[in-house]
Amino acid sequence: MEFLTGVKEKETLGVWEILEGDYEGKVVKVNGAVHNIRNMGDVAFIILRKSEGLVQCVYEEGKTGFDLKELKEESAVEVTGTVAREGRAPQGFELHLSEIRVLSEPAETLPLAINKWRMNTSLETKLALRPISLRNVRERAKFKIQEGIVRGFREFLFGQGFTEIRTPKIVSRGAEGGANVFKLNYFNKRAELGQSPQFYKQTMVGVYDRVFEAAPVFRAEKHNTTRHLNEYISLDFEMGYIDGFEDVMAMETGFLQYTMELLGREYQKELELLGVILPEIRQIPQVRFDKAKELVSEKYNRKIRNPFDLEPEEEQLIGRYFKEEYDSDFVFVTHYPSKKRPFYAMDDPEDNRFTLSFDLLYKGLEITTGGQRIHDYAMILEKMDKRGMDPEDIKDYLMIFKYGMPPHGGLGIGLERMTMRLLDEQNVRETTMFPRDVTRLEP
Amino acid sequence: MEFLTGVKEKETLGVWEILEGDYEGKVVKVNGAVHNIRNMGDVAFIILRKSEGLVQCVYEEGKTGFDLKELKEESAVEVTGTVAREGRAPQGFELHLSEIRVLSEPAETLPLAINKWRMNTSLETKLALRPISLRNVRERAKFKIQEGIVRGFREFLFGQGFTEIRTPKIVSRGAEGGANVFKLNYFNKRAELGQSPQFYKQTMVGVYDRVFEAAPVFRAEKHNTTRHLNEYISLDFEMGYIDGFEDVMAMETGFLQYTMELLGREYQKELELLGVILPEIRQIPQVRFDKAKELVSEKYNRKIRNPFDLEPEEEQLIGRYFKEEYDSDFVFVTHYPSKKRPFYAMDDPEDNRFTLSFDLLYKGLEITTGGQRIHDYAMILEKMDKRGMDPEDIKDYLMIFKYGMPPHGGLGIGLERMTMRLLDEQNVRETTMFPRDVTRLEP
Repeated sequence: MEFLTGVKEKETLGVWEILEGDYEGKVVKVNGAVHNIRNMGDVAFIILRKSEGLVQCVYEEGKTGFDLKELKEESAVEVTGTVAREGRAPQGFELHLSEIRVLSEPAETLPLAINKWRMNTSLETKLALRPISLRNVRERAKFKIQEGIVRGFREFLFGQGFTEIRTPKIVSRGAEGGANVFKLNYFNKRAELGQSPQFYKQTMVGVYDRVFEAAPVFRAEKHNTTRHLNEYISLDFEMGYIDGFEDVMAMETGFLQYTMELLGREYQKELELLGVILPEIRQIPQVRFDKAKELVSEKYNRKIRNPFDLEPEEEQLIGRYFKEEYDSDFVFVTHYPSKKRPFYAMDDPEDNRFTLSFDLLYKGLEITTGGQRIHDYAMILEKMDKRGMDPEDIKDYLMIFKYGMPPHGGLGIGLERMTMRLLDEQNVRETTMFPRDVTRLEP
Repeated sequence: MEFLTGVKEKETLGVWEILEGDYEGKVVKVNGAVHNIRNMGDVAFIILRKSEGLVQCVYEEGKTGFDLKELKEESAVEVTGTVAREGRAPQGFELHLSEIRVLSEPAETLPLAINKWRMNTSLETKLALRPISLRNVRERAKFKIQEGIVRGFREFLFGQGFTEIRTPKIVSRGAEGGANVFKLNYFNKRAELGQSPQFYKQTMVGVYDRVFEAAPVFRAEKHNTTRHLNEYISLDFEMGYIDGFEDVMAMETGFLQYTMELLGREYQKELELLGVILPEIRQIPQVRFDKAKELVSEKYNRKIRNPFDLEPEEEQLIGRYFKEEYDSDFVFVTHYPSKKRPFYAMDDPEDNRFTLSFDLLYKGLEITTGGQRIHDYAMILEKMDKRGMDPEDIKDYLMIFKYGMPPHGGLGIGLERMTMRLLDEQNVRETTMFPRDVTRLEP
């Protein structure tokens, strides 16, 4: 009988093993994809692409028993070579090759120069060729940083006593719904794809006090803009026993501080590659919705057209205002009008035309919506009644209030939007691995 | 202007702050849900339920200015009291109350005794009342342990150089598909819900060499059994530059070892609560599919009916065999017949009726399917052709082979099934927060 006893030691070394160990002058094995071949005549540079970065290999005629003409870009290879210090090489070392073993070969040459520093091509082409354009080192660096944002979210919230939950994405006809849902037939029942884990995360506050989830949400909105996606990752948390919705904003501020610190520590390489400078977040200003409208109206001479909503241009101006006046990339806009918020939002007891809710703007773009929720059964029934909603439609959700819920609030952060702002990209598709929009269902 | 500067210090203390600090004899504030009230006459025990566990509070007539008769179970409260050591209390201490502040109250009394150690009720009732039955301390402990499994998966793979990815769940009509998919209309395009991130994770191996994702998958199978769900969490990884599919099994063995160690360290409380004994995983036997069938046929006197598939009863017997013969809860069954595996599975070059693939059985139940994948463009086209598949249908996926892919393999682990086996539950719904099955779309 054969047995598996755990992870196998590999003969091949990773970049960091070589950088950390004392390998200079020693013979090592490394694998990777042939990213680039620069033939200088007697000598050639073969650049291997590995997950951790590029590795420069020096090929000299007659030293490997391998004909360079046989080597194709995007082949997977395992090479043997001697480690030499070389300041101009991507990692500060290079390999003088003694052996090249081809593990697999492409059938055709690439239709796109992914080994160029900047791929000189349109977003449209990059997305059409996503499975291979992501191999470009700058493209993939974006999603490595995105990984770091999610890690920051989870690590920070674990440290704050939150529990990670997993809630269903196929749901029965919801109450938040309306037109912007993807409908599906679920064994002859009317189902839809979850627009948000809202009801479930509130439910789980009754179980674990503080919960979070990082998972896909689905919106059938027909907007085809630079900031809308029809499927995106929502970083959601919900916390009980709050004193007010300021607790939620404070928690998000803590998350941002923690995450920027984590990115600076663990994703330095990718940040440098993309020339990203992390924002310093000492404090984030908070301003009332109506006050924010006034401020930008005065400063930028702009007429207030709709007192109950923020137009995208107004959001941009609010962002600009707080950058100019307070040097902050972020601003919490609070007290959104009740009629623009869902029924479960807690109205402000001092003026019930407004809610105890907020958006977080990052460089003038909404990346978070959150607030305090109603926790009282009579209050939520009353608000539903005013809106002509039928409690029977969402009785499982209302159960939590009927049998007792602590005061609570939470938020949802759009991961791709946050990444887009951090990386100063102009289109959310740039920071979405495989975007889904009104016209795009593939790749 | 007001500012948010980070997480607010709370006045109330958590259980662990009290346990770790020197609070004996000191007055502290604690919040929680009123889990249970045991009135003994002059004195009453009020048990608070917090995320971290139960806290015993001692109420004495006249000491709080609060009438005990006013207090309802499932109210959210903030209490003030003096910490006293008490060996018989759930956490080893109790609070002698001087103040009770009610933060919110239920409208009705619970229809289910969630504060009983074991809720004496059917699975059906527990699921119908899921939003509140999860408040039972044993119920919620299951999902805390499930959190730990996912943490283990991520932490272990991060340590092994994997990158976390997020792939779309709305996909175009796939090739893996067939009848068991949920179909939906995506802006007048034919779409479906992803049955697995298979194509995307292979694609991302070309980008990051090693990738993983923990996300929902959707299967429209009509099986209504104790082990099937129509939406579940799949723990997927895929790794490049493998020497063979044994590398994948070795990585999974490492994950299991790491995770059991993590659970023992960080989830001891929940494991004890449920009486779970973690398996010791020193080595996991591997056995060929056809050999496994023979072994159980001989030992348990069972006729082999279908040489190309394992019946559930056969899986159970294989589990039993390796428990009896090798004292192992786990066994890797390898070399599944080619006709029972998807087109992208790598056939065994020594006998192409079989594949370089495996299932992992845990106490006789399949919790993982994995294997080596085809990486050669010509080979995958040939296999698709044999199966009458049209390359045009999945050209975005085939692009990765056309332009070069390293040898690679991976697996998917059913999270709820793995949890079910670890906790010795008999129905996968017991270890699913909000199960989706043929008849169940709510809550």
